[in-house]
Amino acid sequence: MILEVADIRIVPGRQADFDAAIRRGVETVIAHAEGFCGYKVNRGVESPERYLLFIYWATLEAHTVGFRQSPLFAQWRDIVGPFFAEPPRVEHFELVARSQ
Amino acid sequence: MILEVADIRIVPGRQADFDAAIRRGVETVIAHAEGFCGYKVNRGVESPERYLLFIYWATLEAHTVGFRQSPLFAQWRDIVGPFFAEPPRVEHFELVARSQ
Repeated sequence: MILEVADIRIVPGRQADFDAAIRRGVETVIAHAEGFCGYKVNRGVESPERYLLFIYWATLEAHTVGFRQSPLFAQWRDIVGPFFAEPPRVEHFELVARSQ
Repeated sequence: MILEVADIRIVPGRQADFDAAIRRGVETVIAHAEGFCGYKVNRGVESPERYLLFIYWATLEAHTVGFRQSPLFAQWRDIVGPFFAEPPRVEHFELVARSQ
């Protein structure tokens, strides 16, 4: 399992619309990608224009190749892209430890 | 529930030791703080010196006041601080949506 973390900054004041859009984008588009295993959307407390989108993928390539090279990627960006104040920063992480 | 995200950069080549230290620091120190609800340690794929530590707290103040103003904070930093290449960046997040 691989965790994708997308660090997103949206234009100020659009939180309520973006909360709905990102949820719709994940559930109606990304969730159909092969290897999609789940997601969380987190909104910043100190930085309310900042969101961390967590997507759990079966493998790194399920995201970087399977999803990004599919038509789903453009559909996703059509839904959430208009809210972005700058390009999201995306990196992937492996789980090292967790509480039982 | 509040998610603390600590964005950590360690000195290169210390991953194995840091993996053990961060786990020990959370489980023997932070886990004893009032309001601690769980944790995950994630290591970067593209940036192997980057870690995202997620800690779930009952409230924001459980972390920012209760933990940081307790003796536990110095104990925690004694364990993990020597590995840091720069001061961690810490912010808090609220859950907006998640997969069922």
